[in-house]
Amino acid sequence: MNYAIDDLILVMKTTKSAICVGLDPFLDKIPDLFIQEGEKLFGKTLSGASYAILKFNKTVLELLAGKVAVVKPQFSLYLKYGPEGVYAFYQTISYAKQLGFLVIADAKSNDIDSSMEGYVQGFLGEAEVSDKKQKVFNADFLTVNPYLGSDSYKPLKKVIECYKKGAFILSKTSNKSSAEYQDKDLDGYPLYLTVAKDVSSYFSDMKGENGYLAAGIVVGATMPEQIKIIRKSFPGLFFLIPGFGAQGGDIDPLKYAFSKNVGFIVNASRSILYSYLDLYRDLGFEKAIIKSCEDMNEKVNSVIKW
Amino acid sequence: MNYAIDDLILVMKTTKSAICVGLDPFLDKIPDLFIQEGEKLFGKTLSGASYAILKFNKTVLELLAGKVAVVKPQFSLYLKYGPEGVYAFYQTISYAKQLGFLVIADAKSNDIDSSMEGYVQGFLGEAEVSDKKQKVFNADFLTVNPYLGSDSYKPLKKVIECYKKGAFILSKTSNKSSAEYQDKDLDGYPLYLTVAKDVSSYFSDMKGENGYLAAGIVVGATMPEQIKIIRKSFPGLFFLIPGFGAQGGDIDPLKYAFSKNVGFIVNASRSILYSYLDLYRDLGFEKAIIKSCEDMNEKVNSVIKW
Repeated sequence: MNYAIDDLILVMKTTKSAICVGLDPFLDKIPDLFIQEGEKLFGKTLSGASYAILKFNKTVLELLAGKVAVVKPQFSLYLKYGPEGVYAFYQTISYAKQLGFLVIADAKSNDIDSSMEGYVQGFLGEAEVSDKKQKVFNADFLTVNPYLGSDSYKPLKKVIECYKKGAFILSKTSNKSSAEYQDKDLDGYPLYLTVAKDVSSYFSDMKGENGYLAAGIVVGATMPEQIKIIRKSFPGLFFLIPGFGAQGGDIDPLKYAFSKNVGFIVNASRSILYSYLDLYRDLGFEKAIIKSCEDMNEKVNSVIKW
Repeated sequence: MNYAIDDLILVMKTTKSAICVGLDPFLDKIPDLFIQEGEKLFGKTLSGASYAILKFNKTVLELLAGKVAVVKPQFSLYLKYGPEGVYAFYQTISYAKQLGFLVIADAKSNDIDSSMEGYVQGFLGEAEVSDKKQKVFNADFLTVNPYLGSDSYKPLKKVIECYKKGAFILSKTSNKSSAEYQDKDLDGYPLYLTVAKDVSSYFSDMKGENGYLAAGIVVGATMPEQIKIIRKSFPGLFFLIPGFGAQGGDIDPLKYAFSKNVGFIVNASRSILYSYLDLYRDLGFEKAIIKSCEDMNEKVNSVIKW
C-alpha cells in the first residue's frame, strides 16, 4: 500500500535530502523588505504581518524547491496572528504542494471522537458541507500528541487510510523537560518507549511499500540514547527528528536513526531560514538560505547511504 | 491577585451557574435555517459552513446570556473548515465576551519555547507587529496538554501573569483510553496525579483572591475516583469537568469536586445545543436550548451551596 510516507521516501531519494525545513515565521527575523511590504499594504496589523509571512515563505519555498523533500510549518506561529495568520498557513501549504514539497502540519493535535476528527479532517482530509466534500488544509502529515491514548488515534487512522496521508506522534521530544514524564518508568518501560510501542502496534496493519508504517514518531535530535533504543525496538517506525542546530542537537544521533530507506527526516528551521542574520551575514538572505540548506544536506548525507 | 479564575467565580456566583456550555458546531445538527442562510450566501463551501456556524453560535450566546458564566468553543471543530472556520471561532469568542461570558479556548495546545508562545499569545495574549501590540483571539482560558513537561508551562505562565488570564491543563481526561497512560504508575503515582501535583506546584505563586491557582486542571466527569483523589490532594486546583451527558458522566462525581467557591465548572455541549433533536424535540431549538440549560443548572446546583 502506498501512503504519504512512501511519497516522502520517493522525493527524499530524488532530492537526495533527508532534511525537513521548518517554516517558523518570526517577524523580527524575516527580512525587512517583506515586513515593509506587509505594512505598506495593511499597516502594522495582523493582516500586514500575515502578508509578510506568506510572501517570505513563498520566496523560501521557491529557493528550496528540488533541494529538500519536505517542509513543516509550525502552526502556532501562524495562529499567533489570528485567522489571517491561519490563512497564511493555508496558503503556505498550498504553495508548497504546488512546488512539489510534502508538508507536515506541526500542530501537535490531540483530542477524542468528533473533536479529533475535526483536526484530522481539517489538516489532512476533507470537510463535508451538505454532502459536498472539500479539501481544507490538505497537508500530508500531522504531528499528534499521545497523552489521551489511542482514542486520539482512531479518527486519525481512518483519515490516513482514506486519504493515504500520514502522522508523526510525539514520543520523545527534544526539550529538556521532556524527561519529566516521557522518561519515567510506566510499568517497567519509559513512557516514550511505551508510546512508540503503542504506535507501532496500533498502525501495524498500515505498512507502506517501503517498509514503514503510515504513522511514525517524533524523537528529538538531542536524545541519542532514546533514538538508539527506539530504532532497535521498532524498525517499522519512521522518525521525524527536531531539535537539530538551535536546540543543540548533533549529527551523531542521526547514525542511530538511519535504517533502510533512510528511516528519518531531521528538521531545521532557524538555522536555514535566518542564517543571513548570523553564520552567513555577508550573503543576502536568499543566498544564505540556499547555502545553509546545502550545508545541512551535506552534513546529514554524511550519515546516509542513498 | 485577580486572575481570570476570579472573574469566572464572580460571574458563576452572579449567574448561579457552574456549567460551561461547549460551543461544538456540527453541521448535521445545527438548525436548517442557519445552514440554508450560509448556503444561500456562499454556496456549499467552507465559507458557507463557517457563516452558518457563527450565526448559530450568536443565537446560542444570546439565548444563554446571563444563564451561564462561561462557554468553551472546541477549536478543532472550527479548524475543520479552514481559515474561514477559524474566523468563525474568532468572532464567536468576540461576541461571547461582548455578552459578558468568560471564554475557554479548547485547543489542548502544547509545544515549547517560541512555539508555545505562539499559542498563548494568540489565544490569550497579544501579538506584536513592529512594536505595535494587538489582541488576537483574546480568550480568557486555554486548555493545555502536559506531555512535553513544564517547558510548555513557561510561556503560558508569562502570558497568564501579564494578562491575568488562565489555563486548564489536562490531567485525567474523560475518554476510555485515558487509562492507557494517565492511570499508569509513574514513580509510585499515577501520571494524572503527577501532572496535577506539578501544575499545583508550578503555579503555586499565582494564587487568585478566591483561593484557586490561575491554572486549573481538566478531569473527566466519568472519573469519580480521580476527582476525589485530586480534590483531596490539591485543594488549590479549580476543575474543568468535561464528559457529562453524551459521554456518560453523572452528577455524583461533582459532589467530590465541590469545594469553597464551588471549585469546578462542568461542561455540556451537545446535550444543550442540540436537545431539540431528541429530549426536547417538541420545542423549537431556541426553547430547547434554554430548557436544557435550565435543567442542567438545576441538576448541577443540587450539589452546590452558593
